[in-house]
Amino acid sequence: MTFVSRRHTHRLRVGYSDTDRAQVVHHAAYLRFLEAGRVESWRAHGLDYRKFEEETGMGLPVVEAKLRYRAAARFDDLLEVETWVEKATRASVWFGGTIRRVEGRGPSLVLESSIRLACVSFAHEELRKIPDVILEACLDPGFQV
Amino acid sequence: MTFVSRRHTHRLRVGYSDTDRAQVVHHAAYLRFLEAGRVESWRAHGLDYRKFEEETGMGLPVVEAKLRYRAAARFDDLLEVETWVEKATRASVWFGGTIRRVEGRGPSLVLESSIRLACVSFAHEELRKIPDVILEACLDPGFQV
Amino acid sequence: MTFVSRRHTHRLRVGYSDTDRAQVVHHAAYLRFLEAGRVESWRAHGLDYRKFEEETGMGLPVVEAKLRYRAAARFDDLLEVETWVEKATRASVWFGGTIRRVEGRGPSLVLESSIRLACVSFAHEELRKIPDVILEACLDPGFQV
Amino acid sequence: MTFVSRRHTHRLRVGYSDTDRAQVVHHAAYLRFLEAGRVESWRAHGLDYRKFEEETGMGLPVVEAKLRYRAAARFDDLLEVETWVEKATRASVWFGGTIRRVEGRGPSLVLESSIRLACVSFAHEELRKIPDVILEACLDPGFQV
Repeated sequence: MTFVSRRHTHRLRVGYSDTDRAQVVHHAAYLRFLEAGRVESWRAHGLDYRKFEEETGMGLPVVEAKLRYRAAARFDDLLEVETWVEKATRASVWFGGTIRRVEGRGPSLVLESSIRLACVSFAHEELRKIPDVILEACLDPGFQV
Repeated sequence: MTFVSRRHTHRLRVGYSDTDRAQVVHHAAYLRFLEAGRVESWRAHGLDYRKFEEETGMGLPVVEAKLRYRAAARFDDLLEVETWVEKATRASVWFGGTIRRVEGRGPSLVLESSIRLACVSFAHEELRKIPDVILEACLDPGFQV
Repeated sequence: MTFVSRRHTHRLRVGYSDTDRAQVVHHAAYLRFLEAGRVESWRAHGLDYRKFEEETGMGLPVVEAKLRYRAAARFDDLLEVETWVEKATRASVWFGGTIRRVEGRGPSLVLESSIRLACVSFAHEELRKIPDVILEACLDPGFQV
Repeated sequence: MTFVSRRHTHRLRVGYSDTDRAQVVHHAAYLRFLEAGRVESWRAHGLDYRKFEEETGMGLPVVEAKLRYRAAARFDDLLEVETWVEKATRASVWFGGTIRRVEGRGPSLVLESSIRLACVSFAHEELRKIPDVILEACLDPGFQV
Protein backbone atom coordinates (compact mmCIF):
# COMPACT_ATOMS: atom_id res chain seq x y z
CA MET A 1 0.00 0.00 0.00
CA THR A 2 1.19 3.47 -0.72
CA PHE A 3 -0.47 6.45 0.85
CA VAL A 4 0.20 9.91 2.09
CA SER A 5 -0.72 10.38 5.72
CA ARG A 6 -2.36 13.51 6.99
CA ARG A 7 -0.38 15.27 9.70
CA HIS A 8 -1.85 17.12 12.61
CA THR A 9 -0.39 19.34 15.30
CA HIS A 10 -1.91 19.67 18.76
CA ARG A 11 -0.65 22.08 21.41
CA LEU A 12 -0.77 21.48 25.12
CA ARG A 13 0.66 22.98 28.27
CA VAL A 14 2.64 20.88 30.78
CA GLY A 15 0.85 20.79 34.13
CA TYR A 16 2.43 20.70 37.58
CA SER A 17 1.19 17.15 38.12
CA ASP A 18 2.86 15.99 34.89
CA THR A 19 6.25 16.57 36.50
CA ASP A 20 8.13 14.43 39.00
CA ARG A 21 10.79 14.97 41.65
CA ALA A 22 13.49 15.24 38.98
CA GLN A 23 11.64 18.48 38.05
CA VAL A 24 10.92 17.31 34.52
CA VAL A 25 7.89 15.68 32.90
CA HIS A 26 7.50 12.07 34.08
CA HIS A 27 8.15 9.63 31.24
CA ALA A 28 4.66 8.09 31.44
CA ALA A 29 2.94 11.45 30.88
CA TYR A 30 4.03 11.56 27.25
CA LEU A 31 1.79 8.58 26.43
CA ARG A 32 -1.14 10.73 27.53
CA PHE A 33 0.09 13.65 25.43
CA LEU A 34 0.40 11.41 22.36
CA GLU A 35 -3.08 10.01 22.98
CA ALA A 36 -4.54 13.53 23.10
CA GLY A 37 -2.69 14.22 19.84
CA ARG A 38 -4.35 11.24 18.13
CA VAL A 39 -7.85 12.17 19.36
CA GLU A 40 -7.41 15.77 18.19
CA SER A 41 -5.98 14.59 14.88
CA TRP A 42 -9.09 12.48 14.31
CA ARG A 43 -11.37 15.36 15.29
CA ALA A 44 -9.58 17.69 12.88
CA HIS A 45 -10.13 15.15 10.11
CA GLY A 46 -13.81 14.65 10.79
CA LEU A 47 -13.82 11.69 13.20
CA ASP A 48 -15.39 12.11 16.64
CA TYR A 49 -13.61 9.27 18.45
CA ARG A 50 -16.02 9.25 21.41
CA LYS A 51 -18.93 8.78 19.05
CA PHE A 52 -16.98 6.08 17.22
CA GLU A 53 -16.65 4.08 20.44
CA GLU A 54 -20.27 4.66 21.46
CA GLU A 55 -21.79 3.85 18.09
CA THR A 56 -19.67 0.87 17.09
CA GLY A 57 -18.96 -0.73 20.47
CA MET A 58 -15.33 -0.91 19.36
CA GLY A 59 -12.18 0.78 20.55
CA LEU A 60 -8.56 1.24 19.47
CA PRO A 61 -6.25 0.07 22.25
CA VAL A 62 -2.52 0.62 22.16
CA VAL A 63 -0.84 -2.74 21.52
CA GLU A 64 2.73 -1.61 21.04
CA ALA A 65 4.72 1.53 21.82
CA LYS A 66 8.25 2.67 21.00
CA LEU A 67 9.42 5.85 22.67
CA ARG A 68 12.69 7.80 22.35
CA TYR A 69 13.08 10.51 24.95
CA ARG A 70 15.31 13.20 23.38
CA ALA A 71 15.15 16.03 25.91
CA ALA A 72 13.27 16.87 29.07
CA ALA A 73 10.13 18.99 29.06
CA ARG A 74 9.35 21.01 32.15
CA PHE A 75 6.39 22.48 34.02
CA ASP A 76 4.50 25.07 31.98
CA ASP A 77 6.32 24.32 28.72
CA LEU A 78 4.07 24.71 25.71
CA LEU A 79 4.38 21.51 23.67
CA GLU A 80 3.42 20.60 20.14
CA VAL A 81 2.38 17.02 19.43
CA GLU A 82 2.63 16.07 15.77
CA THR A 83 0.68 12.99 14.71
CA TRP A 84 0.67 11.01 11.47
CA VAL A 85 0.20 7.48 10.22
CA GLU A 86 3.36 5.51 9.56
CA LYS A 87 1.78 2.31 8.35
CA ALA A 88 -1.65 0.72 8.17
CA THR A 89 -2.75 -2.86 7.70
CA ARG A 90 -6.04 -4.65 8.20
CA ALA A 91 -4.98 -5.53 11.72
CA SER A 92 -3.29 -2.43 13.03
CA VAL A 93 -2.27 1.17 12.45
CA TRP A 94 1.12 2.58 13.43
CA PHE A 95 1.02 6.23 14.45
CA GLY A 96 4.15 8.29 14.35
CA GLY A 97 4.38 11.10 16.82
CA THR A 98 6.85 13.75 17.86
CA ILE A 99 6.64 16.14 20.75
CA ARG A 100 8.45 19.45 20.44
CA ARG A 101 8.82 22.37 22.79
CA VAL A 102 7.39 25.61 21.44
CA GLU A 103 8.49 27.75 24.35
CA GLY A 104 11.03 27.09 27.07
CA ARG A 105 14.73 26.38 27.28
CA GLY A 106 16.83 23.68 25.67
CA PRO A 107 16.56 21.71 22.43
CA SER A 108 13.10 21.62 20.97
CA LEU A 109 12.71 17.91 20.11
CA VAL A 110 11.45 16.20 23.25
CA LEU A 111 10.15 12.81 22.09
CA GLU A 112 9.88 10.56 19.07
CA SER A 113 7.37 7.74 19.08
CA SER A 114 5.66 4.96 17.19
CA ILE A 115 2.40 3.70 18.64
CA ARG A 116 0.54 0.72 17.19
CA LEU A 117 -3.23 0.52 17.67
CA ALA A 118 -5.44 -2.48 17.07
CA CYS A 119 -9.23 -2.59 17.02
CA VAL A 120 -11.30 -4.56 19.56
CA SER A 121 -14.95 -5.20 20.13
CA PHE A 122 -15.61 -4.25 23.76
CA ALA A 123 -18.45 -6.73 24.16
CA HIS A 124 -16.62 -9.71 22.71
CA GLU A 125 -13.07 -8.74 23.73
CA GLU A 126 -12.00 -9.83 20.26
CA LEU A 127 -9.82 -8.24 17.61
CA ARG A 128 -11.54 -6.63 14.63
CA LYS A 129 -10.34 -5.28 11.30
CA ILE A 130 -9.37 -1.60 11.49
CA PRO A 131 -12.55 0.21 10.38
CA ASP A 132 -12.39 2.26 7.17
CA VAL A 133 -13.69 5.30 9.04
CA ILE A 134 -10.49 5.32 11.09
CA LEU A 135 -8.24 5.02 8.07
CA GLU A 136 -10.19 7.69 6.22
CA ALA A 137 -9.62 10.08 9.10
CA CYS A 138 -5.90 9.41 8.98
CA LEU A 139 -5.02 9.12 5.33
CA ASP A 140 -5.35 11.24 2.25
CA PRO A 141 -8.09 10.29 -0.22
CA GLY A 142 -7.05 7.57 -2.61
CA PHE A 143 -5.38 5.24 -0.08
CA GLN A 144 -6.06 1.54 -0.32
CA VAL A 145 -5.13 -1.02 2.28
CA MET B 1 -27.71 5.69 64.73
CA THR B 2 -24.86 4.60 66.92
CA PHE B 3 -22.30 2.15 65.69
CA VAL B 4 -18.67 1.25 66.04
CA SER B 5 -16.79 1.38 62.79
CA ARG B 6 -14.18 -1.14 61.88
CA ARG B 7 -10.76 0.39 61.21
CA HIS B 8 -8.27 -0.87 58.68
CA THR B 9 -4.68 0.00 57.91
CA HIS B 10 -3.18 -0.34 54.44
CA ARG B 11 0.48 0.25 53.64
CA LEU B 12 1.81 1.59 50.39
CA ARG B 13 5.05 2.94 49.00
CA VAL B 14 5.25 6.36 47.32
CA GLY B 15 6.28 5.99 43.67
CA TYR B 16 8.42 8.36 41.63
CA SER B 17 5.45 9.33 39.49
CA ASP B 18 3.42 10.28 42.59
CA THR B 19 5.78 13.20 43.15
CA ASP B 20 5.91 16.57 41.41
CA ARG B 21 8.52 19.24 40.75
CA ALA B 22 8.28 20.47 44.35
CA GLN B 23 9.82 17.05 45.16
CA VAL B 24 6.89 15.98 47.31
CA VAL B 25 3.79 13.88 46.62
CA HIS B 26 1.36 15.76 44.37
CA HIS B 27 -1.81 16.66 46.26
CA ALA B 28 -4.07 14.69 43.88
CA ALA B 29 -2.20 11.43 44.51
CA TYR B 30 -3.58 11.14 48.03
CA LEU B 31 -7.09 10.61 46.68
CA ARG B 32 -5.75 7.48 44.97
CA PHE B 33 -4.06 6.35 48.18
CA LEU B 34 -7.29 6.81 50.15
CA GLU B 35 -9.22 4.91 47.47
CA ALA B 36 -6.81 1.98 47.74
CA GLY B 37 -7.29 2.14 51.51
CA ARG B 38 -11.07 1.79 51.16
CA VAL B 39 -10.83 -1.12 48.71
CA GLU B 40 -8.36 -2.96 50.96
CA SER B 41 -10.51 -2.22 54.01
CA TRP B 42 -13.50 -3.82 52.29
CA ARG B 43 -11.43 -6.81 51.23
CA ALA B 44 -10.17 -7.29 54.79
CA HIS B 45 -13.78 -7.29 55.98
CA GLY B 46 -15.01 -9.79 53.45
CA LEU B 47 -16.20 -7.58 50.59
CA ASP B 48 -14.63 -8.00 47.15
CA TYR B 49 -15.45 -4.57 45.69
CA ARG B 50 -14.76 -5.59 42.08
CA LYS B 51 -17.26 -8.43 42.41
CA PHE B 52 -19.72 -6.05 44.05
CA GLU B 53 -19.61 -3.78 40.98
CA GLU B 54 -19.79 -6.67 38.53
CA GLU B 55 -22.61 -8.53 40.26
CA THR B 56 -24.83 -5.61 41.22
CA GLY B 57 -24.20 -3.18 38.35
CA MET B 58 -23.73 -0.52 41.00
CA GLY B 59 -20.77 1.53 42.12
CA LEU B 60 -19.80 3.88 44.93
CA PRO B 61 -18.61 7.19 43.46
CA VAL B 62 -17.02 9.89 45.58
CA VAL B 63 -19.51 12.75 45.90
CA GLU B 64 -17.69 14.91 48.42
CA ALA B 65 -14.14 15.16 49.73
CA LYS B 66 -12.50 17.16 52.50
CA LEU B 67 -8.73 16.99 52.70
CA ARG B 68 -6.29 18.54 55.17
CA TYR B 69 -2.66 18.27 54.09
CA ARG B 70 -0.57 18.24 57.29
CA ALA B 71 2.93 17.44 56.01
CA ALA B 72 4.57 16.46 52.77
CA ALA B 73 5.26 12.85 51.87
CA ARG B 74 8.18 12.12 49.59
CA PHE B 75 9.35 9.55 47.04
CA ASP B 76 9.83 6.10 48.53
CA ASP B 77 8.17 6.96 51.86
CA LEU B 78 6.26 4.04 53.30
CA LEU B 79 2.77 5.29 54.13
CA GLU B 80 -0.02 3.90 56.26
CA VAL B 81 -3.59 4.67 55.21
CA GLU B 82 -6.11 4.24 58.03
CA THR B 83 -9.76 3.91 56.98
CA TRP B 84 -12.97 3.92 59.01
CA VAL B 85 -16.61 4.96 58.71
CA GLU B 86 -17.50 8.31 60.23
CA LYS B 87 -21.18 8.29 59.44
CA ALA B 88 -23.64 6.29 57.39
CA THR B 89 -27.11 7.09 56.14
CA ARG B 90 -29.36 5.47 53.54
CA ALA B 91 -27.97 7.86 50.94
CA SER B 92 -24.28 8.04 51.67
CA VAL B 93 -21.33 6.86 53.74
CA TRP B 94 -18.63 9.17 55.07
CA PHE B 95 -15.22 7.55 55.30
CA GLY B 96 -12.62 8.99 57.59
CA GLY B 97 -9.04 8.50 56.52
CA THR B 98 -5.59 9.46 57.71
CA ILE B 99 -2.28 8.94 56.01
CA ARG B 100 0.80 8.64 58.16
CA ARG B 101 4.45 8.17 57.33
CA VAL B 102 5.92 4.95 58.71
CA GLU B 103 9.46 5.64 57.53
CA GLY B 104 11.08 8.83 56.39
CA ARG B 105 11.83 12.23 57.86
CA GLY B 106 9.50 14.82 59.38
CA PRO B 107 6.21 14.62 61.28
CA SER B 108 4.30 11.43 60.71
CA LEU B 109 0.76 12.75 60.08
CA VAL B 110 0.54 13.56 56.38
CA LEU B 111 -3.18 13.88 55.65
CA GLU B 112 -6.59 13.89 57.28
CA SER B 113 -9.66 13.30 55.16
CA SER B 114 -13.38 12.76 55.00
CA ILE B 115 -14.72 11.21 51.82
CA ARG B 116 -18.44 10.79 51.17
CA LEU B 117 -19.57 8.00 48.83
CA ALA B 118 -22.99 7.56 47.31
CA CYS B 119 -24.30 4.54 45.41
CA VAL B 120 -25.28 4.64 41.74
CA SER B 121 -26.70 2.21 39.25
CA PHE B 122 -24.33 2.30 36.27
CA ALA B 123 -27.04 1.39 33.77
CA HIS B 124 -29.58 3.94 34.97
CA GLU B 125 -27.14 6.61 36.20
CA GLU B 126 -29.41 6.97 39.23
CA LEU B 127 -28.75 7.11 42.94
CA ARG B 128 -29.50 4.00 44.99
CA LYS B 129 -29.70 3.28 48.71
CA ILE B 130 -26.32 2.25 50.15
CA PRO B 131 -26.44 -1.58 50.02
CA ASP B 132 -26.34 -3.46 53.33
CA VAL B 133 -23.40 -5.48 52.08
CA ILE B 134 -21.32 -2.30 52.03
CA LEU B 135 -22.35 -1.25 55.52
CA GLU B 136 -21.74 -4.74 56.86
CA ALA B 137 -18.20 -4.62 55.52
CA CYS B 138 -17.61 -1.31 57.28
CA LEU B 139 -19.41 -1.57 60.56
CA ASP B 140 -19.36 -3.84 63.55
CA PRO B 141 -22.23 -6.28 63.91
CA GLY B 142 -25.27 -4.78 65.57
CA PHE B 143 -25.33 -1.49 63.66
CA GLN B 144 -28.65 -0.22 62.41
CA VAL B 145 -29.09 2.66 59.99
CA MET C 1 -10.57 42.83 54.36
CA THR C 2 -12.96 43.51 51.55
CA PHE C 3 -11.94 42.97 47.98
CA VAL C 4 -13.30 41.98 44.63
CA SER C 5 -11.64 38.92 43.20
CA ARG C 6 -10.80 38.61 39.57
CA ARG C 7 -12.43 35.61 37.91
CA HIS C 8 -10.92 33.56 35.16
CA THR C 9 -12.23 30.80 32.92
CA HIS C 10 -10.02 28.08 31.49
CA ARG C 11 -11.21 25.45 29.01
CA LEU C 12 -9.89 21.93 28.79
CA ARG C 13 -10.80 18.67 27.13
CA VAL C 14 -11.22 15.44 29.12
CA GLY C 15 -8.67 12.85 28.03
CA TYR C 16 -9.12 9.09 27.84
CA SER C 17 -6.70 8.59 30.72
CA ASP C 18 -8.72 10.97 32.93
CA THR C 19 -11.54 8.42 32.99
CA ASP C 20 -11.88 5.22 35.00
CA ARG C 21 -13.73 1.94 34.68
CA ALA C 22 -17.00 3.60 35.70
CA GLN C 23 -16.62 5.43 32.35
CA VAL C 24 -16.56 8.86 33.97
CA VAL C 25 -13.72 11.18 35.01
CA HIS C 26 -11.88 9.80 38.05
CA HIS C 27 -12.47 11.98 41.10
CA ALA C 28 -8.76 12.74 41.55
CA ALA C 29 -8.44 14.20 38.05
CA TYR C 30 -10.45 17.29 38.99
CA LEU C 31 -7.69 18.44 41.33
CA ARG C 32 -5.41 18.59 38.28
CA PHE C 33 -8.05 20.49 36.31
CA LEU C 34 -8.45 23.03 39.14
CA GLU C 35 -4.67 23.41 39.37
CA ALA C 36 -4.47 24.19 35.64
CA GLY C 37 -7.25 26.72 36.18
CA ARG C 38 -5.25 28.52 38.87
CA VAL C 39 -2.05 28.61 36.80
CA GLU C 40 -3.91 29.96 33.76
CA SER C 41 -5.74 32.49 35.93
CA TRP C 42 -2.41 33.78 37.21
CA ARG C 43 -0.99 33.94 33.68
CA ALA C 44 -4.04 35.89 32.47
CA HIS C 45 -3.46 38.38 35.27
CA GLY C 46 0.23 38.87 34.59
CA LEU C 47 1.84 36.29 36.87
CA ASP C 48 4.06 33.60 35.34
CA TYR C 49 3.86 30.99 38.13
CA ARG C 50 6.87 29.00 36.89
CA LYS C 51 9.01 32.11 37.01
CA PHE C 52 7.61 32.91 40.46
CA GLU C 53 8.85 29.53 41.76
CA GLU C 54 12.20 29.80 40.01
CA GLU C 55 12.93 33.39 41.05
CA THR C 56 11.69 33.31 44.64
CA GLY C 57 12.48 29.72 45.63
CA MET C 58 8.96 29.58 47.02
CA GLY C 59 5.88 27.62 46.05
CA LEU C 60 2.17 27.52 46.84
CA PRO C 61 1.22 24.02 47.99
CA VAL C 62 -2.38 22.97 48.52
CA VAL C 63 -2.98 22.65 52.27
CA GLU C 64 -6.71 22.07 52.28
CA ALA C 65 -9.33 21.04 49.71
CA LYS C 66 -13.10 20.80 49.77
CA LEU C 67 -14.73 19.22 46.75
CA ARG C 68 -18.41 18.66 45.90
CA TYR C 69 -18.94 16.38 42.91
CA ARG C 70 -22.26 17.44 41.33
CA ALA C 71 -22.34 15.44 38.10
CA ALA C 72 -20.05 13.17 36.14
CA ALA C 73 -17.89 14.44 33.31
CA ARG C 74 -16.98 12.00 30.56
CA PHE C 75 -14.26 11.36 27.99
CA ASP C 76 -13.94 14.18 25.45
CA ASP C 77 -16.24 16.56 27.33
CA LEU C 78 -15.15 20.16 26.96
CA LEU C 79 -14.95 21.64 30.46
CA GLU C 80 -14.76 25.15 31.77
CA VAL C 81 -12.85 25.76 35.00
CA GLU C 82 -13.77 29.03 36.71
CA THR C 83 -11.29 30.31 39.30
CA TRP C 84 -11.55 33.14 41.82
CA VAL C 85 -10.30 34.08 45.28
CA GLU C 86 -12.72 33.46 48.12
CA LYS C 87 -10.58 34.75 50.94
CA ALA C 88 -7.02 35.84 51.51
CA THR C 89 -4.99 36.25 54.69
CA ARG C 90 -1.30 36.64 55.36
CA ALA C 91 -1.01 32.89 55.76
CA SER C 92 -3.19 31.46 53.04
CA VAL C 93 -5.44 32.06 50.05
CA TRP C 94 -8.69 30.20 49.46
CA PHE C 95 -9.50 29.69 45.80
CA GLY C 96 -13.02 29.01 44.74
CA GLY C 97 -13.46 26.90 41.64
CA THR C 98 -16.27 25.44 39.62
CA ILE C 99 -16.07 23.06 36.72
CA ARG C 100 -18.87 23.12 34.18
CA ARG C 101 -19.50 21.12 31.06
CA VAL C 102 -19.62 23.22 27.89
CA GLU C 103 -20.51 20.36 25.57
CA GLY C 104 -21.84 16.91 26.34
CA ARG C 105 -24.91 15.44 27.97
CA GLY C 106 -26.37 15.95 31.44
CA PRO C 107 -26.39 18.88 33.86
CA SER C 108 -23.64 21.37 33.30
CA LEU C 109 -22.32 21.88 36.85
CA VAL C 110 -19.76 19.15 37.47
CA LEU C 111 -17.81 20.28 40.54
CA GLU C 112 -17.66 22.97 43.21
CA SER C 113 -14.48 23.45 45.17
CA SER C 114 -12.54 25.48 47.70
CA ILE C 115 -8.79 25.03 47.69
CA ARG C 116 -6.53 26.65 50.27
CA LEU C 117 -2.93 27.40 49.35
CA ALA C 118 -0.12 28.36 51.68
CA CYS C 119 3.33 29.61 50.75
CA VAL C 120 6.52 27.69 51.50
CA SER C 121 10.21 28.25 51.00
CA PHE C 122 11.49 25.16 49.19
CA ALA C 123 14.99 25.43 50.65
CA HIS C 124 13.89 25.89 54.27
CA GLU C 125 10.65 23.88 54.12
CA GLU C 126 9.07 26.68 56.13
CA LEU C 127 5.86 28.64 55.78
CA ARG C 128 6.09 32.16 54.40
CA LYS C 129 3.64 35.07 54.15
CA ILE C 130 1.64 34.97 50.91
CA PRO C 131 3.62 37.27 48.58
CA ASP C 132 1.94 40.44 47.36
CA VAL C 133 2.65 39.45 43.77
CA ILE C 134 0.30 36.48 44.19
CA LEU C 135 -2.47 38.57 45.71
CA GLU C 136 -2.06 41.23 43.05
CA ALA C 137 -2.57 38.60 40.37
CA CYS C 138 -5.76 37.43 42.05
CA LEU C 139 -7.42 40.55 43.32
CA ASP C 140 -8.64 43.79 41.89
CA PRO C 141 -6.52 46.88 42.55
CA GLY C 142 -7.26 48.47 45.87
CA PHE C 143 -7.33 45.32 48.00
CA GLN C 144 -5.60 45.36 51.34
CA VAL C 145 -4.95 42.33 53.48
CA MET D 1 30.52 -8.28 28.32
CA THR D 2 28.92 -11.42 29.62
CA PHE D 3 26.98 -11.39 32.81
CA VAL D 4 24.06 -13.00 34.54
CA SER D 5 21.42 -10.53 35.59
CA ARG D 6 19.62 -10.79 38.86
CA ARG D 7 15.86 -11.09 38.51
CA HIS D 8 13.32 -9.67 40.87
CA THR D 9 9.56 -10.00 41.20
CA HIS D 10 7.36 -7.27 42.63
CA ARG D 11 3.64 -7.65 43.25
CA LEU D 12 1.09 -4.87 43.01
CA ARG D 13 -2.64 -4.45 42.90
CA VAL D 14 -4.38 -2.56 40.09
CA GLY D 15 -6.21 0.50 41.46
CA TYR D 16 -9.47 1.99 40.24
CA SER D 17 -7.66 5.06 38.95
CA ASP D 18 -5.29 2.90 36.88
CA THR D 19 -8.21 1.94 34.65
CA ASP D 20 -9.90 3.92 31.89
CA ARG D 21 -13.30 4.00 30.23
CA ALA D 22 -12.49 0.82 28.26
CA GLN D 23 -12.56 -0.81 31.74
CA VAL D 24 -8.98 -2.02 31.49
CA VAL D 25 -5.69 -0.60 32.77
CA HIS D 26 -4.70 2.50 30.80
CA HIS D 27 -1.60 1.86 28.69
CA ALA D 28 0.43 4.60 30.41
CA ALA D 29 -0.05 3.05 33.86
CA TYR D 30 2.26 0.14 33.04
CA LEU D 31 5.25 2.50 32.86
CA ARG D 32 4.58 3.33 36.51
CA PHE D 33 4.29 -0.36 37.37
CA LEU D 34 7.61 -1.12 35.66
CA GLU D 35 9.24 1.81 37.47
CA ALA D 36 8.06 0.44 40.82
CA GLY D 37 9.48 -2.93 39.78
CA ARG D 38 12.92 -1.41 39.15
CA VAL D 39 12.97 0.50 42.45
CA GLU D 40 11.96 -2.63 44.39
CA SER D 41 14.49 -4.71 42.49
CA TRP D 42 17.24 -2.31 43.52
CA ARG D 43 16.04 -2.32 47.13
CA ALA D 44 16.04 -6.12 47.18
CA HIS D 45 19.63 -6.07 45.95
CA GLY D 46 20.84 -3.55 48.49
CA LEU D 47 20.43 -0.26 46.67
CA ASP D 48 18.21 2.43 48.19
CA TYR D 49 17.44 4.44 45.04
CA ARG D 50 16.18 7.50 46.93
CA LYS D 51 19.43 7.68 48.85
CA PHE D 52 21.34 7.19 45.61
CA GLU D 53 19.69 10.29 44.13
CA GLU D 54 20.11 12.34 47.31
CA GLU D 55 23.73 11.42 47.92
CA THR D 56 25.06 11.56 44.37
CA GLY D 57 22.92 14.33 42.85
CA MET D 58 22.38 11.98 39.93
CA GLY D 59 19.34 10.19 38.59
CA LEU D 60 18.46 7.50 36.06
CA PRO D 61 15.91 8.86 33.58
CA VAL D 62 14.19 6.65 31.04
CA VAL D 63 15.60 7.48 27.61
CA GLU D 64 13.93 4.77 25.56
CA ALA D 65 11.00 2.41 26.03
CA LYS D 66 9.63 -0.50 24.02
CA LEU D 67 6.32 -1.93 25.18
CA ARG D 68 4.27 -4.86 23.87
CA TYR D 69 0.79 -5.04 25.35
CA ARG D 70 -0.23 -8.73 25.30
CA ALA D 71 -3.48 -8.76 27.26
CA ALA D 72 -5.55 -6.35 29.30
CA ALA D 73 -5.26 -6.13 33.06
CA ARG D 74 -8.29 -5.00 35.02
CA PHE D 75 -9.21 -3.27 38.26
CA ASP D 76 -8.11 -5.20 41.33
CA ASP D 77 -5.99 -7.70 39.39
CA LEU D 78 -2.92 -8.76 41.32
CA LEU D 79 0.07 -8.29 39.03
CA GLU D 80 3.62 -9.53 39.13
CA VAL D 81 6.33 -7.32 37.65
CA GLU D 82 9.52 -9.19 36.80
CA THR D 83 12.65 -7.07 36.32
CA TRP D 84 16.10 -7.94 35.02
CA VAL D 85 18.97 -6.37 33.10
CA GLU D 86 19.13 -7.13 29.40
CA LYS D 87 22.25 -5.21 28.58
CA ALA D 88 24.56 -2.71 30.20
CA THR D 89 27.12 -0.32 28.77
CA ARG D 90 28.95 2.66 30.20
CA ALA D 91 26.22 4.92 28.87
CA SER D 92 23.01 3.06 29.55
CA VAL D 93 21.29 0.04 31.03
CA TRP D 94 18.46 -1.83 29.33
CA PHE D 95 15.97 -3.32 31.75
CA GLY D 96 13.75 -6.15 30.64
CA GLY D 97 10.38 -6.37 32.30
CA THR D 98 7.28 -8.49 32.10
CA ILE D 99 3.99 -8.01 33.82
CA ARG D 100 1.87 -11.07 34.52
CA ARG D 101 -1.50 -11.51 36.12
CA VAL D 102 -1.42 -13.63 39.27
CA GLU D 103 -5.17 -13.60 39.84
CA GLY D 104 -8.00 -12.70 37.50
CA ARG D 105 -9.35 -13.94 34.20
CA GLY D 106 -7.68 -14.31 30.83
CA PRO D 107 -4.12 -15.07 29.72
CA SER D 108 -1.51 -14.29 32.30
CA LEU D 109 1.10 -12.41 30.24
CA VAL D 110 0.03 -8.76 30.19
CA LEU D 111 3.09 -6.85 29.02
CA GLU D 112 6.64 -7.27 27.74
CA SER D 113 9.03 -4.35 27.88
CA SER D 114 12.53 -3.06 27.41
CA ILE D 115 13.38 0.19 29.16
CA ARG D 116 16.70 1.97 28.67
CA LEU D 117 17.99 4.20 31.44
CA ALA D 118 20.81 6.69 31.25
CA CYS D 119 22.46 8.56 34.11
CA VAL D 120 22.30 12.35 34.50
CA SER D 121 23.69 14.87 36.92
CA PHE D 122 20.71 16.93 38.09
CA ALA D 123 22.78 20.06 38.71
CA HIS D 124 24.57 20.03 35.38
CA GLU D 125 21.86 18.39 33.27
CA GLU D 126 24.62 16.31 31.70
CA LEU D 127 24.99 12.61 30.98
CA ARG D 128 27.21 10.59 33.29
CA LYS D 129 28.66 7.07 33.16
CA ILE D 130 26.31 4.51 34.76
CA PRO D 131 27.64 4.25 38.34
CA ASP D 132 29.06 0.91 39.47
CA VAL D 133 26.68 0.90 42.43
CA ILE D 134 23.76 0.62 40.02
CA LEU D 135 25.31 -2.19 38.03
CA GLU D 136 26.27 -4.03 41.20
CA ALA D 137 22.65 -3.91 42.32
CA CYS D 138 21.52 -5.39 39.02
CA LEU D 139 24.13 -7.93 38.10
CA ASP D 140 25.63 -11.01 39.64
CA PRO D 141 29.12 -10.69 41.09
CA GLY D 142 31.84 -11.11 38.52
CA PHE D 143 30.35 -8.90 35.82
CA GLN D 144 32.60 -6.49 33.99
CA VAL D 145 31.45 -3.75 31.66
